[in-house]
Amino acid sequence: MSNAATLGAMRDLPSRLLLGPGPSNAHPRVLQAMAQPLLGHLDPAFLELMDEAQDGLRTLYGTSNAFTLPLSATGSAGMEACLCNLLEPGDDVVVGIAGVFGGRMAEVATRIGARVTRVEAEWGTALEPAAMAEAIGSVRPKVVAFVHAETSTGVLQPVDEIAARARAEGALVVLDCVTSLGGLPVELDAKGIDAAYSGTQKCLSCPPGLSPVSFSERALECVRSRARPVQSWYLDVSLLAGYYGGERVYHHTAPISAIYGLVEGLRVALEEGLPARTARHVAAQTALLERLAPLGFEPLVEPAHRLPPLTTLRLPAAVRDRGEAAVRRALLDEHGIEVGGGLGKLAGDVWRVGLMGENARLESVERLVSALESVLG
Amino acid sequence: MSNAATLGAMRDLPSRLLLGPGPSNAHPRVLQAMAQPLLGHLDPAFLELMDEAQDGLRTLYGTSNAFTLPLSATGSAGMEACLCNLLEPGDDVVVGIAGVFGGRMAEVATRIGARVTRVEAEWGTALEPAAMAEAIGSVRPKVVAFVHAETSTGVLQPVDEIAARARAEGALVVLDCVTSLGGLPVELDAKGIDAAYSGTQKCLSCPPGLSPVSFSERALECVRSRARPVQSWYLDVSLLAGYYGGERVYHHTAPISAIYGLVEGLRVALEEGLPARTARHVAAQTALLERLAPLGFEPLVEPAHRLPPLTTLRLPAAVRDRGEAAVRRALLDEHGIEVGGGLGKLAGDVWRVGLMGENARLESVERLVSALESVLG
Repeated sequence: MSNAATLGAMRDLPSRLLLGPGPSNAHPRVLQAMAQPLLGHLDPAFLELMDEAQDGLRTLYGTSNAFTLPLSATGSAGMEACLCNLLEPGDDVVVGIAGVFGGRMAEVATRIGARVTRVEAEWGTALEPAAMAEAIGSVRPKVVAFVHAETSTGVLQPVDEIAARARAEGALVVLDCVTSLGGLPVELDAKGIDAAYSGTQKCLSCPPGLSPVSFSERALECVRSRARPVQSWYLDVSLLAGYYGGERVYHHTAPISAIYGLVEGLRVALEEGLPARTARHVAAQTALLERLAPLGFEPLVEPAHRLPPLTTLRLPAAVRDRGEAAVRRALLDEHGIEVGGGLGKLAGDVWRVGLMGENARLESVERLVSALESVLG
Repeated sequence: MSNAATLGAMRDLPSRLLLGPGPSNAHPRVLQAMAQPLLGHLDPAFLELMDEAQDGLRTLYGTSNAFTLPLSATGSAGMEACLCNLLEPGDDVVVGIAGVFGGRMAEVATRIGARVTRVEAEWGTALEPAAMAEAIGSVRPKVVAFVHAETSTGVLQPVDEIAARARAEGALVVLDCVTSLGGLPVELDAKGIDAAYSGTQKCLSCPPGLSPVSFSERALECVRSRARPVQSWYLDVSLLAGYYGGERVYHHTAPISAIYGLVEGLRVALEEGLPARTARHVAAQTALLERLAPLGFEPLVEPAHRLPPLTTLRLPAAVRDRGEAAVRRALLDEHGIEVGGGLGKLAGDVWRVGLMGENARLESVERLVSALESVLG
C-alpha cells in the first residue's frame, strides 16, 4: 500500500457532529496543533508550552493553585488521582451520589480502602445540601467528594453550601468538573475546593486523553503528611510536582501532541473569554429545548438544576416505539450526528445531548432538529 | 489575536531531530492522522480502528493474547497496570534491576504492598540469568519482573533463560518492552511472557501518551482469582476488557486522536515489516558507533548486550571539559538535535543516543556527527 493510499484511508473517516456526552468536536485549530512535529518533553520550547497550559487551566479553574496541570490520562484517572492522593485506608469520605460519576467516586474510594458514606439523591435531581451537611456533621470525614456537572443525568449540582459546610468541619473538598470546566464558571478558590479534575474532550473542544487537575496548598499538605506512599506511582502528586513545578525532574514522558492541542484549545477559550463562553452554552441549551419541545422531547431536569453543556431528554413515543437505539443509529448513519443514550439507571429512558465547547451553537441545534424531523418523518 | 496569528505561533515551534531516549520524531503520516476530526469512542468506525490497533499490536508483540490494547496513559502507567493487576499485598515478586526502570518496577511493586526481592546487576551490564534463577528458586514468587530494553543503560537483557526458569517455578513473567516494541522482536508467546507493556514514543514513531499492554490468559486468570479488587479502577484489566474485548461497555473515554496516530504508526511499521525494521535499527547503531569512535565516544555496553535503538556512550574529554550538559544544549540550540543525558547513577557520565523508529537511519547519524564536529570544533 502506498503512503498516499493509506493516508487517504485515514482521511476517509466519516464526518461526525458529536452531540453526545463527549467527546465533542475538537476545534480545527486544536487539530492543526496536534499535527505539529514533536519536541522533547524537557525541551525549553516545550516547557514554555507546558507553563502556558498550566496558566490557562488556572484561569479557567479560577484558582491560583501552583499544582494545576494536565494529567497524562483521561478524566477518570483525574478522579482517581484526587481520591488516591488524599485518602488512605481507613479514612472517612462522604460522597454525594446522584448519577454514574458520583457512584464511580464511591467505587474508587472503596478500592482505596476508605470508609465511604454515601449520600444519595434521585437521578435527575441535585444533591440535597442539608443531607450532605448532616452526613458531614455526623461523620466528620477527611474528604467530601461530589460532582459539579453530573454527565450521566445533566444536573448541575449546588457547590457553595456543601463546600462551605465541609470546610467548616475541616474536610477537604474534591469536585468533579469534567463537564463544567471551560463551559461554565468553576471558581475553585472562591468556592473553597481543594482538589478538582476534568477532561479535555467536553467544553474545552480538545481530544480526550488529558485530565486537568488542581490541588490546593491544603490538599498538598495532606499528601505530604500521609502515613504511607500513594499506591499509584503514576498519579502521585508529590512526584508529579517535581516535573510540573519548575525543577523539571523526569517522572514520565509528557504526551507532547496532546499538550499542543490543549494549549491551542485554551487559547481559543481564553480569546473568547469564560463569560461569553458560558452565555453561549446557556443560549444553546435554551434553543435546544425550545426546538425539541414540538417533537415531544421533555427535559428530565428542573430548570434550576439544568447543566447547560449537557441536556437529558425524556423520549417521545415516536422514538420509544421505534427503539431509541435504532433512532440514534439512524441519526449517526444517515446524518452523521451522534447523540448519547442514557447511562446506568437511565439507559433506554433518556438521551443525552451535549452542546459543548465549539458545538454549543444554534447551528448544532438546527442540524439535530432537522435530522430528527427527517428520521422520525 | 486572530486565528491565523495564533496558528502561526504554534507552527513556529523549533524543528528538532530527537535522538534522545524518547520521544523520537513521529512519522509524518502519524502526525497527519492525529489531525483528523474526532469520532465518538463508541462509533462503529472508531471501533474498527481500535480493532486494527489491537491486531497490529498483537503482531509486533508476537502474541495471540486477546487482551492486547493501548492503555490510555504513558508507558509508566503500563508498568503500573501490569504490576498492580497481578500483585496483591503480601505477594512475592522477584525484580531484576540493572538501571532506572528495573528500579522503578521495584518501587511500584513496593507501593502495592508486595514483598520485593531485588536481583541487582551493575548498570551497563545485563542481568545474570543464574542470579535470577537462584532468587526465583529460593523465593518461588508469584511474579518475576524485569526489563527487556533498559532505557537508562542501553542494555538488551536476556529474556529466554529467565522467563523459562520463572515459568518452570510457576511464576508469571512481566516484561518492560518500552524501548524494544516495534524496533526489535519481542515474541511474547514464544518466550512465555505473561504481561508486557511499552510506549508509543520510541520505536513506533508515534507521540507519547499511550501504553501498549498485553496480558496472557494465565495472567487474566490470576486477575480473576484476586482476593480483593485492583486498587486502581482506571487500570483494572477486568474492567478494561469490557470495552476493548468486544462488548464495548463504557469504561473511560478512549483518546481518539492518539489512537488514530497509533493506527497509522502501526501501518507504517507493518508495511516495512519487523525483520527489515530490526535490521535498520542494528545498522544505524553500527554506523553510529563507527562514526563516533574517532571523536572519542566509547560504548558503555559490551557488544553482546547492546540495545540497538538506544546507545549509551562514555564521553570524551572534549565533552567532559566543556560540561556535557552545555554541549547537549549547544547541539539543541545551534543544530536542533536532542540527545539524552545519563539518568540516575549515570547522570553526567554518559549520553544516551536514541536511533528509534523513523530516526534509525544513516542520515540521523550523519547529522549528529556533523553537528558534534561543529560544536566541539
